[in-house]
Amino acid sequence: ARTGIPEAVFAESKSDAQLRDIIQAHQERKVPLLVTRLSGDQIEALSDLPLNVDPLARTATLLKSAPPPQAPQIMVVTAGTSDLAVAREAANSAEFMGLRVRIIADVGVAGLWRLEKHLPDLARARLIVAVAGMEGALFPVVAGLVAAPVIAVPTSVGYGVAKDGSVALGSALGTCAPGVVCVNIDNGFGAAAAAAKILLAP
Amino acid sequence: ARTGIPEAVFAESKSDAQLRDIIQAHQERKVPLLVTRLSGDQIEALSDLPLNVDPLARTATLLKSAPPPQAPQIMVVTAGTSDLAVAREAANSAEFMGLRVRIIADVGVAGLWRLEKHLPDLARARLIVAVAGMEGALFPVVAGLVAAPVIAVPTSVGYGVAKDGSVALGSALGTCAPGVVCVNIDNGFGAAAAAAKILLAP
Amino acid sequence: ARTGIPEAVFAESKSDAQLRDIIQAHQERKVPLLVTRLSGDQIEALSDLPLNVDPLARTATLLKSAPPPQAPQIMVVTAGTSDLAVAREAANSAEFMGLRVRIIADVGVAGLWRLEKHLPDLARARLIVAVAGMEGALFPVVAGLVAAPVIAVPTSVGYGVAKDGSVALGSALGTCAPGVVCVNIDNGFGAAAAAAKILLAP
Amino acid sequence: ARTGIPEAVFAESKSDAQLRDIIQAHQERKVPLLVTRLSGDQIEALSDLPLNVDPLARTATLLKSAPPPQAPQIMVVTAGTSDLAVAREAANSAEFMGLRVRIIADVGVAGLWRLEKHLPDLARARLIVAVAGMEGALFPVVAGLVAAPVIAVPTSVGYGVAKDGSVALGSALGTCAPGVVCVNIDNGFGAAAAAAKILLAP
Amino acid sequence: ARTGIPEAVFAESKSDAQLRDIIQAHQERKVPLLVTRLSGDQIEALSDLPLNVDPLARTATLLKSAPPPQAPQIMVVTAGTSDLAVAREAANSAEFMGLRVRIIADVGVAGLWRLEKHLPDLARARLIVAVAGMEGALFPVVAGLVAAPVIAVPTSVGYGVAKDGSVALGSALGTCAPGVVCVNIDNGFGAAAAAAKILLAP
Amino acid sequence: ARTGIPEAVFAESKSDAQLRDIIQAHQERKVPLLVTRLSGDQIEALSDLPLNVDPLARTATLLKSAPPPQAPQIMVVTAGTSDLAVAREAANSAEFMGLRVRIIADVGVAGLWRLEKHLPDLARARLIVAVAGMEGALFPVVAGLVAAPVIAVPTSVGYGVAKDGSVALGSALGTCAPGVVCVNIDNGFGAAAAAAKILLAP
Amino acid sequence: ARTGIPEAVFAESKSDAQLRDIIQAHQERKVPLLVTRLSGDQIEALSDLPLNVDPLARTATLLKSAPPPQAPQIMVVTAGTSDLAVAREAANSAEFMGLRVRIIADVGVAGLWRLEKHLPDLARARLIVAVAGMEGALFPVVAGLVAAPVIAVPTSVGYGVAKDGSVALGSALGTCAPGVVCVNIDNGFGAAAAAAKILLAP
Amino acid sequence: ARTGIPEAVFAESKSDAQLRDIIQAHQERKVPLLVTRLSGDQIEALSDLPLNVDPLARTATLLKSAPPPQAPQIMVVTAGTSDLAVAREAANSAEFMGLRVRIIADVGVAGLWRLEKHLPDLARARLIVAVAGMEGALFPVVAGLVAAPVIAVPTSVGYGVAKDGSVALGSALGTCAPGVVCVNIDNGFGAAAAAAKILLAP
Ligand SMILES: Nc1ncnc2c1ncn2[C@@H]1O[C@H](COP(=O)(O)O)[C@@H](O)[C@H]1O
Ligand SMILES: Nc1ncnc2c1ncn2[C@@H]1O[C@H](COP(=O)(O)O)[C@@H](O)[C@H]1O
Ligand SMILES: Nc1ncnc2c1ncn2[C@@H]1O[C@H](COP(=O)(O)O)[C@@H](O)[C@H]1O
Ligand SMILES: Nc1ncnc2c1ncn2[C@@H]1O[C@H](COP(=O)(O)O)[C@@H](O)[C@H]1O
Ligand SMILES: [Mg+2]
Ligand SMILES: [Mg+2]
Ligand SMILES: [Mg+2]
Ligand SMILES: [Mg+2]
Ligand SMILES: [Mg+2]
Ligand SMILES: [Mg+2]
Ligand SMILES: [Mg+2]
Ligand SMILES: [Mg+2]
Repeated sequence: ARTGIPEAVFAESKSDAQLRDIIQAHQERKVPLLVTRLSGDQIEALSDLPLNVDPLARTATLLKSAPPPQAPQIMVVTAGTSDLAVAREAANSAEFMGLRVRIIADVGVAGLWRLEKHLPDLARARLIVAVAGMEGALFPVVAGLVAAPVIAVPTSVGYGVAKDGSVALGSALGTCAPGVVCVNIDNGFGAAAAAAKILLAP
Repeated sequence: ARTGIPEAVFAESKSDAQLRDIIQAHQERKVPLLVTRLSGDQIEALSDLPLNVDPLARTATLLKSAPPPQAPQIMVVTAGTSDLAVAREAANSAEFMGLRVRIIADVGVAGLWRLEKHLPDLARARLIVAVAGMEGALFPVVAGLVAAPVIAVPTSVGYGVAKDGSVALGSALGTCAPGVVCVNIDNGFGAAAAAAKILLAP
Repeated sequence: ARTGIPEAVFAESKSDAQLRDIIQAHQERKVPLLVTRLSGDQIEALSDLPLNVDPLARTATLLKSAPPPQAPQIMVVTAGTSDLAVAREAANSAEFMGLRVRIIADVGVAGLWRLEKHLPDLARARLIVAVAGMEGALFPVVAGLVAAPVIAVPTSVGYGVAKDGSVALGSALGTCAPGVVCVNIDNGFGAAAAAAKILLAP
Repeated sequence: ARTGIPEAVFAESKSDAQLRDIIQAHQERKVPLLVTRLSGDQIEALSDLPLNVDPLARTATLLKSAPPPQAPQIMVVTAGTSDLAVAREAANSAEFMGLRVRIIADVGVAGLWRLEKHLPDLARARLIVAVAGMEGALFPVVAGLVAAPVIAVPTSVGYGVAKDGSVALGSALGTCAPGVVCVNIDNGFGAAAAAAKILLAP
Repeated sequence: ARTGIPEAVFAESKSDAQLRDIIQAHQERKVPLLVTRLSGDQIEALSDLPLNVDPLARTATLLKSAPPPQAPQIMVVTAGTSDLAVAREAANSAEFMGLRVRIIADVGVAGLWRLEKHLPDLARARLIVAVAGMEGALFPVVAGLVAAPVIAVPTSVGYGVAKDGSVALGSALGTCAPGVVCVNIDNGFGAAAAAAKILLAP
Repeated sequence: ARTGIPEAVFAESKSDAQLRDIIQAHQERKVPLLVTRLSGDQIEALSDLPLNVDPLARTATLLKSAPPPQAPQIMVVTAGTSDLAVAREAANSAEFMGLRVRIIADVGVAGLWRLEKHLPDLARARLIVAVAGMEGALFPVVAGLVAAPVIAVPTSVGYGVAKDGSVALGSALGTCAPGVVCVNIDNGFGAAAAAAKILLAP
Repeated sequence: ARTGIPEAVFAESKSDAQLRDIIQAHQERKVPLLVTRLSGDQIEALSDLPLNVDPLARTATLLKSAPPPQAPQIMVVTAGTSDLAVAREAANSAEFMGLRVRIIADVGVAGLWRLEKHLPDLARARLIVAVAGMEGALFPVVAGLVAAPVIAVPTSVGYGVAKDGSVALGSALGTCAPGVVCVNIDNGFGAAAAAAKILLAP
Repeated sequence: ARTGIPEAVFAESKSDAQLRDIIQAHQERKVPLLVTRLSGDQIEALSDLPLNVDPLARTATLLKSAPPPQAPQIMVVTAGTSDLAVAREAANSAEFMGLRVRIIADVGVAGLWRLEKHLPDLARARLIVAVAGMEGALFPVVAGLVAAPVIAVPTSVGYGVAKDGSVALGSALGTCAPGVVCVNIDNGFGAAAAAAKILLAP
């Protein structure tokens, strides 16, 4: 598209037939395609198609080529293992858009020393995608420690007041740690799109 | 009272005359009294009375004696200077109830190194009252680093989504860092009362 | 961990395989483990492992030893029978962390006389965990009657305005009965962790 | 009016001139009138009119006769002194509508023994209007102890999560103590109107 | 119980075994019992017991005798057919408590003429229970037309902004039509209990 | 503008100087102008300009000509006198855009008979703008009685749960009375603009 | 009905038997009927009846005749394919009420050029029903470009903060683009009813 | 600081004395300083200090040097003139951090043609800060038209449902236009800090 982001399809409200049509049209035109938020049933229904599927991330890609070795790299950090699904949606989307990705999982602030051992790597990063649910303290903590911009992806992991991700979202938006920007709850794709626009601009 | 907490008066919805009556009654009976959430106008209107007033904390005490040197000590830590008013309400209330208090201000997580230099002291604390507004990341960070229980006091410091303290409250409740308990937004008095019940139990 | 709380696993967002891995790793290293918020399906899938399972509380423990007879005791009181699941999560967690526990169930305020007969016991308690849903009146009522600190655990028991526990939470936070502190809705584990940090501090 | 409730005027959004017009029209027609939610400025602006004004309750009445001695009596109980303004709006409105009223103030649940000494009186009441802010525990506690129906009037007294009365409202609606009905936050007038419809039906 | 309301059980969070135990205990002691909010599965599981079940209302009664012919009668009016389940919970509960009940269904305000033909009956009623979801306009409309007090039961019937009953609840509380009191969303039982306390007081 | 609506200026966030500039520019170009949501201070600061000011409605017009006699007429009905300010913003805006307007005030549903006497007029209307705060029952009641479309303007008149107009808004959106459409709370201007687009289309 | 809108039935809270009864009664009286919000199960259960069913729109009609060729036409535009179900509910309802309908799907603002090619058609429209979820930017964009009034139908399509349609609703209500009016989330039927009242008035 | 962002002070909760102390300390150490969210009173109280004050933006800078001519440039676009204050906070902060800035004001989507004439400029931008209140449609519209990343700053400009900026925030987060990231409501400073981290990384 004219905005520089390759086309992606949001599967959540589409029928199997609609998805199949879209995918086959791209296949015939030899145009790469990213599909996000696939359900388990949709993945099964499309299993005969030549898709590269990640069931945890609920993504599929068609005709994706690996990012070139000189492509900029982003780091995706997660607070807990439960945030891995969203982190992988971000990672798969970013690779589809031409970025290289490194994931550092389970560094959540309840135990800061787990984060500390990755600080040298984070200090060298050009852009960090931070993925966290619950109270989302990872966002200000990382932004307070590194020079790179932080794209926060709040996740819907949590219960009680933290259910559905609103506390993590509030943490990302309400912090005064400079350099944190935010996307919608569970929107790993959106974080990747912003990272691509930032790092791959002509 | 039979719950072990000396009587306290919540000034916010009382007239000057009502407050004066209560204070003078205690004065005559020689019973110590704590008054919280005084407005500037109330403080002025009561300025002829023998009260020990802290205008920033908006508290006043009558007939308060200093806590004995062997009294247990609590630590009150604040994220920013803006949280100091609530921190001082907590500190003044705790001293009134018989605890010794040490305040460590402005260690907020946007710069973790400011917190780090106080870690040895915090590691020795028996109970920490943590006071923070904005995104309230101080609560899980402190609780993840020390063995003492943490009583979180969210403050109404912040704007936008963090206005009125709801994000800081969510952070205190939604965290999975073990050992954080929480009181109402801006309720420094409540944190002190809980600390007194915990540390001064017979 | 360095905070004095033995490791615990939150099962809700983990796969059967992930849980099995974590449990077996602890089994091999002979390290005790607490698992919380297990679903019925997860309990079944792990039924071959040497776990001590409480299906109502949705907890499992590995290698737990009984708390020593001189361990401090806490009292867990519930408003209704529906709050028992959360109360048992609190109790099992507290025992796992080394506390002795006594549960008093179904004393809810709609009939205060049911609470009254337990008052002598409650008056002797060093710490009370109060578990209530609906309107959560148990929290201020208990705190107004006893000298011990009260850790309130609001539960998601209720419907209409009380659905998901927000009214009970508001009751715990909004009361002016001194000495009530609060954890997240349904967070029996968190109440136990705070109790352990309070009573087992070195 | 045809619903049996004498006319009342809600002053909050009316100009001084509009209020003066309405009052003088009633004066000329010799029709009793109740005005509620008057501001201090409005009270001053209307001070030349033959009104019976209660500044704390923010009510004024015109041509009110005392309720007959055989009129049914209601009891108005308040949790704290801060709830007295709303309680007096309820009491003044009820008397205007022909009920006798007795107010019992400051029996809030943080100290249940203050409520206990009034239980014999409450047990004889035909209808209780309970007025409370903060966490509103007064509503279930009273309803659990007496046979009379309880009309709950949540007040906007409180701060933090209890600000503006929503927690007290939730307590009134969310309780399972049978026999509690509820009106809007601070709506003492509405409680009186319902009491009049209940007790003065032909 | 000492509040004059016969015991009732809220089934929603109880196991089949717990319900069976409670019911059989009452059966043995020959004490009448009301069970509310039964699921279809629970009804089936208890089908061998001598219960009087209303599947639409999700209620069951044990040992209920018909209200005496001289018992006071209440009127239950509903806005739509979808509100009938809650209306029947109210009606069955009221009859269990000794009131006679008449239901007038589907008089919702979208067509006021349907309500008009029942006005003579409503004008004679001593107490009206009004049951409505969606925007809940039935509450002020009925209260503006009749002398009897109106107990509003908002229902969770609706979608979009009206989902879960909050708009109907707001209508019941926010109206200035005098004489409306309110219970929790879907709480037909609570309306009946209040009606019984009002009309059956000694 | 190309959408057929003459230009209007929203004064709320503009300085006196900015407003003066805009108005004088229109004056010089002889282009009619509508200004909405003027504060009392702004009205005073601009009092030397040749504006047609309505202080209650907080509107001012420049170079407005009267609507032609054959222009379509709309009816503006209000629930209470407190809703008159917003009703007049709607009326003044509609006249500015070329519609004739008739206002019927204070027909609120708490007394339906006040509405009934206007039904013949309303039955002939081509479009009704209904303005109501509190519980907003006027919207479904009017729409259930007439053939004309109803543009609902919820107002911020109310208190407690009805404060700021959210219940009235919910009533307008949540009703199942067909033919009600809605604009923002207090947005009389928006209702007028929609009426003009509906009735003055070429 | 006397409001000019043919009768319609909201299926969501009705049993199969209730629906069958209503439909057969209309069939016998030869009265056309529209049924909305049918579930898949309900559609199956009623499959023997002579209904015209649209499973995507979840509507069914009985005895519907095609709108006459001279009937006014409305345009229904959707932001995405996921909004098509609600758009079709609007379209089917409008045709049932006697309007001609043209649907333009998937013109959402993320790619404005897709909207641009339809601008000439939209410029000629007498009334536009705009259907959008997510952030609902379609509403102000369309209203800023055309002279016709826009009835906005926010949809529950979205996730995170946009879940359940509240952001799209806010966009429809909060915009200052003149001429946008709004109905409830997912209420395609309501938009059609308003369009019919606007365009088919006698 | 070690994150690459020069120190900034949030004035909103600081006393005049506290601000004066901080500023003078920086003056003595010859360290540049940015102060944000100054009130009119604070600006006056500090008027003797050598600050560069922008009263509309409520910012002040000390010892700021102009950004070098080869510094990267960002574009700040606003929907309306009311959003200019926040836009200028962003612009002043960005210049203080070393970026060049160009502001394009009042291009809001209610008139898309105003945006269109700036498209060539926007198409060349490396980063766009978009500032909008009300319904915030500017965010998806701009992001759908340009290749540059868009940092959305929702503003608290609006009323009714759009009051305090929550609808604009929802628009920024809920859009599916790729490449939009978001900061807190009114947080122009935060947008500038993120832009600086993005464009000035070593
Ligand atoms: N700042 C405060 N926040 C919460 N509760 C308070 C505060 N200050 C005093 N209290 C409690 O409120 C009660 C007094 O309420 P009152 O009788 O209205 O003055 C005391 O018993 C205290 O326990
Ligand atoms: N404090 C109050 N709260 C709620 N409703 C009130 C109050 N005072 C008067 N009313 C009702 O509001 C109606 C008057 O509204 P208005 O015509 O605006 O003065 C009366 O008929 C009363 O029933
Ligand atoms: N009271 C009002 N409410 C909503 N929109 C308005 C109002 N008054 C004017 N407007 C619209 O807001 C736009 C002007 O915004 P501005 O350029 O900020 O003055 C105009 O084009 C009108 O369509
Ligand atoms: N307008 C603003 N909004 C959010 N954060 C800010 C703002 N201005 C300054 N800050 C940040 O808040 C921190 C200062 O907080 P304080 O120590 O309370 O002045 C600084 O480190 C800045 O990163
Ligand atoms: Mg982990
Ligand atoms: Mg600071
Ligand atoms: Mg029980
Ligand atoms: Mg008191
Ligand atoms: Mg019906
Ligand atoms: Mg009136
Ligand atoms: Mg699409
Ligand atoms: Mg403008």
